[in-house]
Amino acid sequence: MALSTAFTKLFGVEHPIALAPMGGSAGGALAAAVSLGGGLGLLGSANGDREWLDRELPIVAERADRPWGVGFWTWAVDVGAVEYALEHNPRAVMLSFGDPSPFAERIRRAGAALIIQVTDLEEARQAVDLGADVIVAQGTEGGGHGARRGRSTLPFVPLVVDLAAPVPVLAAGGIADGRGLAAALALGAAGALIGTRFQATAEALVAPSIAKAIVEGRGQDTERNRVLDIARGSRWPAKYTARTLGHPYIDRWRDREAELAADAEAQQAYQDDVARGVVPPLPVWAGEAVDLINDLPPAAGLVGALAAQAEDALARAGRQ
Amino acid sequence: MALSTAFTKLFGVEHPIALAPMGGSAGGALAAAVSLGGGLGLLGSANGDREWLDRELPIVAERADRPWGVGFWTWAVDVGAVEYALEHNPRAVMLSFGDPSPFAERIRRAGAALIIQVTDLEEARQAVDLGADVIVAQGTEGGGHGARRGRSTLPFVPLVVDLAAPVPVLAAGGIADGRGLAAALALGAAGALIGTRFQATAEALVAPSIAKAIVEGRGQDTERNRVLDIARGSRWPAKYTARTLGHPYIDRWRDREAELAADAEAQQAYQDDVARGVVPPLPVWAGEAVDLINDLPPAAGLVGALAAQAEDALARAGRQ
Repeated sequence: MALSTAFTKLFGVEHPIALAPMGGSAGGALAAAVSLGGGLGLLGSANGDREWLDRELPIVAERADRPWGVGFWTWAVDVGAVEYALEHNPRAVMLSFGDPSPFAERIRRAGAALIIQVTDLEEARQAVDLGADVIVAQGTEGGGHGARRGRSTLPFVPLVVDLAAPVPVLAAGGIADGRGLAAALALGAAGALIGTRFQATAEALVAPSIAKAIVEGRGQDTERNRVLDIARGSRWPAKYTARTLGHPYIDRWRDREAELAADAEAQQAYQDDVARGVVPPLPVWAGEAVDLINDLPPAAGLVGALAAQAEDALARAGRQ
Repeated sequence: MALSTAFTKLFGVEHPIALAPMGGSAGGALAAAVSLGGGLGLLGSANGDREWLDRELPIVAERADRPWGVGFWTWAVDVGAVEYALEHNPRAVMLSFGDPSPFAERIRRAGAALIIQVTDLEEARQAVDLGADVIVAQGTEGGGHGARRGRSTLPFVPLVVDLAAPVPVLAAGGIADGRGLAAALALGAAGALIGTRFQATAEALVAPSIAKAIVEGRGQDTERNRVLDIARGSRWPAKYTARTLGHPYIDRWRDREAELAADAEAQQAYQDDVARGVVPPLPVWAGEAVDLINDLPPAAGLVGALAAQAEDALARAGRQ
């Protein structure tokens, strides 16, 4: 018996799994594969760069017989880019990190489902007030960007479920196998939004070295800070940190972020190290569940495998 | 149908719930109530203080028709205190925070089950090697003491389950209602070790002001640090932090622990403030799931209620 939730019913998808719209790496091929596999593929448009959208949107839009969507960094995107994406008729638009109010009405008017990711209860309340169709409750275990002082997924999700009911909630952060999905459902979530696990798939737009680092990485080596964002001159606002695997610049500048931000020479040294190939061109964003990732499968089959493992985990739970 | 796991079978208890042996506050009445309610009550002996044990052990030992146990802080206790407790024939002894090897053999020889709490994979491996009968995987969401750089419960528990199999694992940290217990079981745990939820019960040895603070407290106001341990001159080793509710001294000394440790005057000021009643005599140790705690029920009934809610959560998960 397949897993059935308010999320699967809302979108008419087979499995309660959404692809985290990881900026840049969740391209058209990955989003399409997740949708074809029975989940909800979400394109990671990040700041709404037109060139990227022009390349990736058609890849996923061609598979329009299954629902798919597109995600943006709310602080970085303008209304024009969201409207541009809406012209391709995504079934859903997801907004993360920032004030979603300037976009909410426009997205709903276009007939797309509004998915809002939240990192605390205040944001969750705002998402309900804005009429979100789905709320993603992101825990600090997750890879990549998140709140500086984030909540943990296990205690955070039930709170958002209670606050948002009957709006369906997806759990995000720390979920990389079917057991994590099963736990999310047990907490009352209508599914899981999964990132790092999908970075290590055949379709993710990541360098082979990054996929390899994820397969080999350990959760205990991940940490959340701004060091690499500062070093690489990223525009991410100071209220967001990123969880990454270890990096020599993190070891060098841990707990000294203000100092690094004021040190133009050190930032130049980072650029030089990247140019010389001494450090990789991008951080390896990875969640704490990275230990559970040991292969690089095609994404479509992975969706069904995660759902099957979740069903099995629920069937076994408390029945030994 | 009741929840059945390797933990309930091992101890012959009704529900897959153990009381966290919270130092000082998990006294004989609370441990007995949890055991009578169908869980495994664990006395919080902390450093093995004889006077405390002489007062609390007989209260729980009198209820010896149900299994119960006793927990110690491994770094703080000596073999004599463990042997003293073993004379009362606890069904289990739990060791947390420190090297359990000097105690393991003695506990097993006495016929008690050996429960070891771990905060990382290295500790989990050691617990398996020492022949632990049950391993508790503690996430950083938990209230009170834990590893400075702890793992989150949701991604940590499945790792320990895989590593320890077939040794049963209890999930700890961030679990305060039946949904959290259900999630723990879905992750492959054989049950949950629950702390903060049981601090807010009729039987906990806490001041009314602390119980009230827990009922009113919010997870977002908890944080993990050493400020209050340093201020109050506690002997807790530097590798352990404590998650507590907010406190004026935390606001004053956040991120300046080394400075506080070197400032005898500031520590004296804390003592003076306690003496004058300006700050409470003890920190309010509380986990991140404290939002889910809104009442002060008797503990025995709470055990069954948590288990019933978990059964319900599992029955609903993915079946909407």
